[in-house]
Amino acid sequence: MEPPAQPRRVTIVDVARHAQVSTTAVSKVLRNAYGASPEMRAKVRRAIDELGYRPLAAARGLRGQTYTIGVMLPDIRNPFFPEILDGITDRLTDTDYQVFLGPGCNGEKEEARVTEAMIDRGMDGIILIAPISPRAHLQRIASAVPTVVVGRHGHSPVYDTVTDDDVTGASLMVGHLADLGHRRIAHIEHHETDPTRIAEMPNAQRADGYRRAMRSLGLAEEIDIVSTSYTQQGGYEGAKKLLARPRRPTAVFAGADIVAMGVLEAFTEAGLSVPGDISVAGYDNTTFASFGPISLTSVDQAGHEIGGNAARLLLERIADRKKAPVQVKLSPTLVPRRTTAPPPA
Amino acid sequence: MEPPAQPRRVTIVDVARHAQVSTTAVSKVLRNAYGASPEMRAKVRRAIDELGYRPLAAARGLRGQTYTIGVMLPDIRNPFFPEILDGITDRLTDTDYQVFLGPGCNGEKEEARVTEAMIDRGMDGIILIAPISPRAHLQRIASAVPTVVVGRHGHSPVYDTVTDDDVTGASLMVGHLADLGHRRIAHIEHHETDPTRIAEMPNAQRADGYRRAMRSLGLAEEIDIVSTSYTQQGGYEGAKKLLARPRRPTAVFAGADIVAMGVLEAFTEAGLSVPGDISVAGYDNTTFASFGPISLTSVDQAGHEIGGNAARLLLERIADRKKAPVQVKLSPTLVPRRTTAPPPA
Repeated sequence: MEPPAQPRRVTIVDVARHAQVSTTAVSKVLRNAYGASPEMRAKVRRAIDELGYRPLAAARGLRGQTYTIGVMLPDIRNPFFPEILDGITDRLTDTDYQVFLGPGCNGEKEEARVTEAMIDRGMDGIILIAPISPRAHLQRIASAVPTVVVGRHGHSPVYDTVTDDDVTGASLMVGHLADLGHRRIAHIEHHETDPTRIAEMPNAQRADGYRRAMRSLGLAEEIDIVSTSYTQQGGYEGAKKLLARPRRPTAVFAGADIVAMGVLEAFTEAGLSVPGDISVAGYDNTTFASFGPISLTSVDQAGHEIGGNAARLLLERIADRKKAPVQVKLSPTLVPRRTTAPPPA
Repeated sequence: MEPPAQPRRVTIVDVARHAQVSTTAVSKVLRNAYGASPEMRAKVRRAIDELGYRPLAAARGLRGQTYTIGVMLPDIRNPFFPEILDGITDRLTDTDYQVFLGPGCNGEKEEARVTEAMIDRGMDGIILIAPISPRAHLQRIASAVPTVVVGRHGHSPVYDTVTDDDVTGASLMVGHLADLGHRRIAHIEHHETDPTRIAEMPNAQRADGYRRAMRSLGLAEEIDIVSTSYTQQGGYEGAKKLLARPRRPTAVFAGADIVAMGVLEAFTEAGLSVPGDISVAGYDNTTFASFGPISLTSVDQAGHEIGGNAARLLLERIADRKKAPVQVKLSPTLVPRRTTAPPPA
């Protein structure tokens, strides 16, 4: 095969020369401006096709839209995020918008880098998934570019939100475990110290929902929370701590499926049988939870629907930046599977 | 909290007014051009800081670089890709480059859409992970923008490649299973009909490596390949077909860990014990394979190193578009775990 030449990019000047018209005329056609005759349009379009000219989105960006939507993901390994992402891309399939993901944002500095890069590149809108940055920072982003915040509670006058009712989800799980006969139900949460995040982050709401449900079931004295992180490693470490308790829990409610993975790992290592010796539950109903050999009891928060709603709200906000902010809150459902059972007699 | 105003973007004109200099002077400072005095630079920098002016990458893109690298991922659910991605982002951490992912490309049309979007937005370089498009299309992309192709064999005069030696990897696995005493070793491959893809795609090379290894071990008559896809569903369907064989295999070598997930799912459903009744092996050594309760025998292809090499080659090619193309080929290693054991007596 012949090595293709490395051509320089075809420019508007080449198109003009090829069509034998002025560059101003080409520019008019590209902008759909008045003053270009049908003949002129046809000539220019033909030259564009023949030369394979592609107007730079960057150039369009200087004038208006880039038809680019940025999605910031906190952790590409968490199997819950692909569900949200599918919901977003499915909603945008028949539009001109292209989604680009900003990956790997596990801190405020990383989030700032990614969101600044998105704004800097003239993206038309941004979807932030479970951002941890201070609310003032999120509002600055939303002031610069239409923004939808997913999976973080708390209202803002400048951005829309899509969340799941995490308090309800956690209480569904505690209720399920209590119904099975458990009393010593422990919870593994993602460590938070920032007061705004404690109020707004889904992990904090799940921990809060756990506490409230335990109290309302008369199990206040059994409340037992281990603070690690929403990662597999966090689940592993949390489980190790719970195993070291003088009085072990009979059920562990991990705040996310990925945390439950680490819990199962630690229990397997310790030679414990699940659910025979101890019950384990997660949250998010990921493909991991539904995976047959694991079959993890979890809470479904309809990631696909969350993503679809986020994309819809973003398109609406791009169309009308002044519209009143919208909060969409979805209702979770319990998905009982094989990792939860009555406690050992 | 006061709703922040929705300011229009600060422009170079605002900066000039604020610094009480001409826009040409601001532009010179931004371009690091000659003819801007140190005093002028200081004034303009101060105005930029005070107004929070951010030069548009889009505007820079018209003149040259956008400091943006696009990574095309075929499937965000495959747990192997985050390893490659980490390798890429780690290598770029201390540079000005920002990585954006183009997700969800499971077909030629989808790949064309994403790569065109990347070129259209003036990205400086593109990393294509296991692309399935015809080689001519990849070469067109590489002619437009510096490109590195990951996980696809075959040389090109216009792009660099980073691959793993998939033939060797497959033969390591077949050798391991044969050493355990297996003869009826089946393989689940990703279906391919296109001749170039059969020569170049890692899945096809793994199937080829399986065939060769079986022959060299005197097991040519036991060669048994099921063609599905490199997805969990593909593994599930492949396993169902193998279970329906009049003479069942004693070991199943799935071409990817995500395929092995589907195999384990089907075997769990069928009430088969792994590895007591049947052995299962994957490929990629993902976090799923190393996950304790699964503990899947796999082949490690050093995803992090693959990603790091891809980023390095891309930076080199951005710096020098005319340099000779480079092919980096890494060597895989076998990682035996609990899902493989001698066949039942």
